[in-house]
Amino acid sequence: MAPVTIDTFVNQDKPHVVSNQSATITFGEYIFRRLLSIGTKSVFGVPGDFNLSLLEYLYAPSVESAGLKWVGTCNELNAAYAADGYSRYSNKIGCLITTYGVGELSALNGIAGSFAENVKVLHIVGVAKSMDSRSDNFKDRNLHHLVPQLHDSNFKAPNHKVYHDMVKDRVACSVAYLEDIETACDQVDAVIRDIYKYSKPGYIFVPADFADMSVAPANLIDVSHINQQDCITFPSEIQLFDVIDRATKWIYSSKTPAIIGDVLTDRYGVSDVLNKLIYATGIWNFSTVMGKSVLDESNPTYMGQYNGKEGLKQVYQHFEDCDLVLHFGVDINEINNGHYTFTYKPNAKIIQFHPNYVRFVDTRYGEEQMFEGINFAPVLQELYKRIDVSRLSLQYDPSVTPYTNETMQLEDPINEQSNNITQIHLQKVMPKFLNPGDVVVCETGSFQFSVRDFAFPTQLKYISQGFFLSIGMALPAALGVGIAMQDYPKAHITGGGIKEDYKPRLILFEGDGAAQMTIQELSTILKSNIPIEIVIWNNNGYTIERAIMGPTSSYNDIMPWKWTKLFEAFGDFDGKHTNNTVIESPSQLSLKLKELKNSKTRDRIELLEVKLGVFDFPEQLKCMVEAAALKRNKK
Amino acid sequence: MAPVTIDTFVNQDKPHVVSNQSATITFGEYIFRRLLSIGTKSVFGVPGDFNLSLLEYLYAPSVESAGLKWVGTCNELNAAYAADGYSRYSNKIGCLITTYGVGELSALNGIAGSFAENVKVLHIVGVAKSMDSRSDNFKDRNLHHLVPQLHDSNFKAPNHKVYHDMVKDRVACSVAYLEDIETACDQVDAVIRDIYKYSKPGYIFVPADFADMSVAPANLIDVSHINQQDCITFPSEIQLFDVIDRATKWIYSSKTPAIIGDVLTDRYGVSDVLNKLIYATGIWNFSTVMGKSVLDESNPTYMGQYNGKEGLKQVYQHFEDCDLVLHFGVDINEINNGHYTFTYKPNAKIIQFHPNYVRFVDTRYGEEQMFEGINFAPVLQELYKRIDVSRLSLQYDPSVTPYTNETMQLEDPINEQSNNITQIHLQKVMPKFLNPGDVVVCETGSFQFSVRDFAFPTQLKYISQGFFLSIGMALPAALGVGIAMQDYPKAHITGGGIKEDYKPRLILFEGDGAAQMTIQELSTILKSNIPIEIVIWNNNGYTIERAIMGPTSSYNDIMPWKWTKLFEAFGDFDGKHTNNTVIESPSQLSLKLKELKNSKTRDRIELLEVKLGVFDFPEQLKCMVEAAALKRNKK
Repeated sequence: MAPVTIDTFVNQDKPHVVSNQSATITFGEYIFRRLLSIGTKSVFGVPGDFNLSLLEYLYAPSVESAGLKWVGTCNELNAAYAADGYSRYSNKIGCLITTYGVGELSALNGIAGSFAENVKVLHIVGVAKSMDSRSDNFKDRNLHHLVPQLHDSNFKAPNHKVYHDMVKDRVACSVAYLEDIETACDQVDAVIRDIYKYSKPGYIFVPADFADMSVAPANLIDVSHINQQDCITFPSEIQLFDVIDRATKWIYSSKTPAIIGDVLTDRYGVSDVLNKLIYATGIWNFSTVMGKSVLDESNPTYMGQYNGKEGLKQVYQHFEDCDLVLHFGVDINEINNGHYTFTYKPNAKIIQFHPNYVRFVDTRYGEEQMFEGINFAPVLQELYKRIDVSRLSLQYDPSVTPYTNETMQLEDPINEQSNNITQIHLQKVMPKFLNPGDVVVCETGSFQFSVRDFAFPTQLKYISQGFFLSIGMALPAALGVGIAMQDYPKAHITGGGIKEDYKPRLILFEGDGAAQMTIQELSTILKSNIPIEIVIWNNNGYTIERAIMGPTSSYNDIMPWKWTKLFEAFGDFDGKHTNNTVIESPSQLSLKLKELKNSKTRDRIELLEVKLGVFDFPEQLKCMVEAAALKRNKK
Repeated sequence: MAPVTIDTFVNQDKPHVVSNQSATITFGEYIFRRLLSIGTKSVFGVPGDFNLSLLEYLYAPSVESAGLKWVGTCNELNAAYAADGYSRYSNKIGCLITTYGVGELSALNGIAGSFAENVKVLHIVGVAKSMDSRSDNFKDRNLHHLVPQLHDSNFKAPNHKVYHDMVKDRVACSVAYLEDIETACDQVDAVIRDIYKYSKPGYIFVPADFADMSVAPANLIDVSHINQQDCITFPSEIQLFDVIDRATKWIYSSKTPAIIGDVLTDRYGVSDVLNKLIYATGIWNFSTVMGKSVLDESNPTYMGQYNGKEGLKQVYQHFEDCDLVLHFGVDINEINNGHYTFTYKPNAKIIQFHPNYVRFVDTRYGEEQMFEGINFAPVLQELYKRIDVSRLSLQYDPSVTPYTNETMQLEDPINEQSNNITQIHLQKVMPKFLNPGDVVVCETGSFQFSVRDFAFPTQLKYISQGFFLSIGMALPAALGVGIAMQDYPKAHITGGGIKEDYKPRLILFEGDGAAQMTIQELSTILKSNIPIEIVIWNNNGYTIERAIMGPTSSYNDIMPWKWTKLFEAFGDFDGKHTNNTVIESPSQLSLKLKELKNSKTRDRIELLEVKLGVFDFPEQLKCMVEAAALKRNKK
């Protein structure tokens, strides 16, 4: 047999790309041009035989010239995490492309996380072709990447839609398994609209033969751009009047109102409006675990992170003084609500603003009024426009001071001369290390619990999986954030106070156990030329689990790695693109942090391995520990 | 706030472990003792807060003293792959333990692969506790790791069994979501029996509070061991007589019978019986893609790998001469059956032996007889026992020579003095490098297609995902195989011909693109002291995809890595445990291969990075390429 050479390859049929002028385009081109039209400028994923025909259209002139970028990740789970990070930063739809079964299933946990945390992700899966050129009974065949039936698989056709059936109505707000090319473009658009509407992931399953098929470009011409605001449900004029009228009455009559800036405020792109409302009114405001960095935490009316009885006493005492709570972007779960310990002032009024309702609760009379089916984003915008600050009657206790990084009065028993870096030391020094306008990605783990009570500098964007808590997510998510920062530079900076020439840093806080899960994506971060500061908290294992159970159990141990050697193996052969530093003492840490904070050139990757105690975890993690202990004792 | 110290941890309640003498044991102990009783001596996984209470029982005296080993992997997908490899080698049940949502979903693709390829895997998932000590309305709460409802999640309870619902009846033969401690032990046993019966994965969802609960150890006493043969359906005496009678009649009257050794022969542990039948009768025999290494390929009656018209002409010509085909362990899918091109001699008789049926087909009369509901393993054993070789009437063409590595007559245009290593060169030299009794794990990719036509030395065990084809599986699977070889040394060596003191090698053939997917598990291989030879085929990207489409498309590129530096980063800081070699020429390859083949000390890890051409793929891959091309042209 003769060896197969490059000629075998280049003589293959190249996909037929229809030019812009012609009446039809290929469906592959449609998909990518539609992505561009919704603001998705980069796509993550891994090639596989069922998606190759689609991927070929990345190079169609109309797609390539418009700048759509392919970011190949090392595996599909990491692609899902990256797409999630892309969306969290840009507030556009993050997209990943995987292949039938082996690819899409690997990505599933990332998608579930996006679903749980309301992140806009489009998962395009290349699936078996709609018809087969090789046989008439294709549908009866057990295809590779597809699980056969449990019973009688040698005789019975497999379920070609088995993976689709898994995700539909469970981890996706919208799912289209394309079967008819005539309606395919409409189905794509419908899924995109749902993703924007619900701020949750959607799936499009694309048969391998569809990419080359011709479709009309009508949709692209009729609707040349789709933004989130095109997809949400606006209130009617009458509804809007009712809601604003009722809300302002409650606000004007309140002496101690509070605003909660929760996660969905970020997801529906109205964080800046909410901050403007706060600047204008001076109403006390509180962040939530999932809504961290929605609010300007440098604002003198910022009162800290409210997390029910699980948060700081200094914070919930002030919250419980408030007679009206305006909860914007409310999302209720055990993490975001301190294990359901939200506690209001007796007789307080509450208004919840949600993508599907605005709800007024008067606890004095046990009354509530629900405005269903309307999105709060336009309501907030209208409220900001219509509010008359002269009618406010704020009477906060003048002795109360705003929340700052000093509020906790942390007693750090160590100083820069001691040898060990502790969590409490980190809580004291790390906030100082951040600049206004920086972007911080934080891994699930011990340190994440400290960050809750940081008062961030203004315009800092914080990205973390606060509720779904899938360890390993942050590193590939940081890749996605880095790509989004390339596509949308400074998109998170909506206010003033940041120098024109300041280049926001991207900082990743990562645990060692978590980092091992998805470490290979360092390689893609390097490949993609993303300047990033990566801080690896090396505490020799799963300290967050040790805190809950089995502190010395071997299952919480991990293999010790030489973290500072990773980039050399992953592609920085001559060390030109990365600095890798081991930090063992508080003084080394301070020195390096100052250098990074003040650095003028940010073109390299900085990796810091910071050595921490194996059993050291922050006070804020205690709630989870205690919950677990309680469970154990009460059995 | 005072820092939390180690005292906080060691003062936690240790789980109450009931001694063997007492009337009850904890359920956690039950699970692990049951695992030991079914031959599962190692468990893979990742700790998470919902499984910690279970993992604590790894250290119960009755469990620890019996030698149950915890192998913590870097992530859950890798744990699933490792458990799969463990089972493929040992033919016992591979087990992994993950946590609710974030862990189990990450592992799902590995489980689907085990399902598609009939591998016995038990997936234990730690889930939310059955009751909650903190609140009465626990079931209504949005727990971390759990996806909320799409609609009204702030008001409606989540589906606690959402992940269970995904896998049930799709990628598992048996699923138990434990809700009643009274029946929990029986449910565990039932899932285990189903896994052995179907040779497919099963799930047990264990509420976090169940591990500490007391159960009766009755099941462990009544049934102290469970083997696969205890779980399969035996034929009745009458059925067995009928089947053997009919089969032997057909065999005795056949002039040119053929035996196919297919994958389920391996999964039901009767490969050695089949080989004995072949040795005794001299019947021509053929392997399949998924059943590779079921048969003794050094046997002079071995006729090569039959894969319909997609296999070698030299092979299918002989197959099509056979008037009777005894197909043992038949599993029909497009890969294992050459895209459904199996072609029989006109008027041939066929007997298919399957775990759920034995089927007689007489193509001359279009007749068939089906014996349903019986497992073929005892039938094969009985057939071997009863067959009277003196009544055989074999009349094979005496000019036909058996299949060997020379049958293909590969024309290798290069010699050891040339500079480039080609796939065709590998096909010629690699078989010589393997010793009888070795264990080979092969990644999905170009080289895997060549291996199909290797004639392996006797007693070599070959492990590869031939049908599901999930790239990245082989590396963690090799970890599982290595652990299984520690637990069951030489379990695969059932015949003679291997020297007593020969220590079988574990060899992993891995592609570069695939390796990047799951590379961190090198670290666990090192941690677990597994001597292994790892051959990384470095062809700069996804050559298997390039062969199908987009040969020069950037989506098929990957980041170049310095493969020989990985182990240093992953824990072999001083190079004491690994040798890392770059191989660029045929002569370097030969030298190293000879060294490894003949080495007497096999206590180190050997990593070979072998540089290959970007566009070079083996002839055997052409079938997939052509199928894809055909599809494209015929649109």
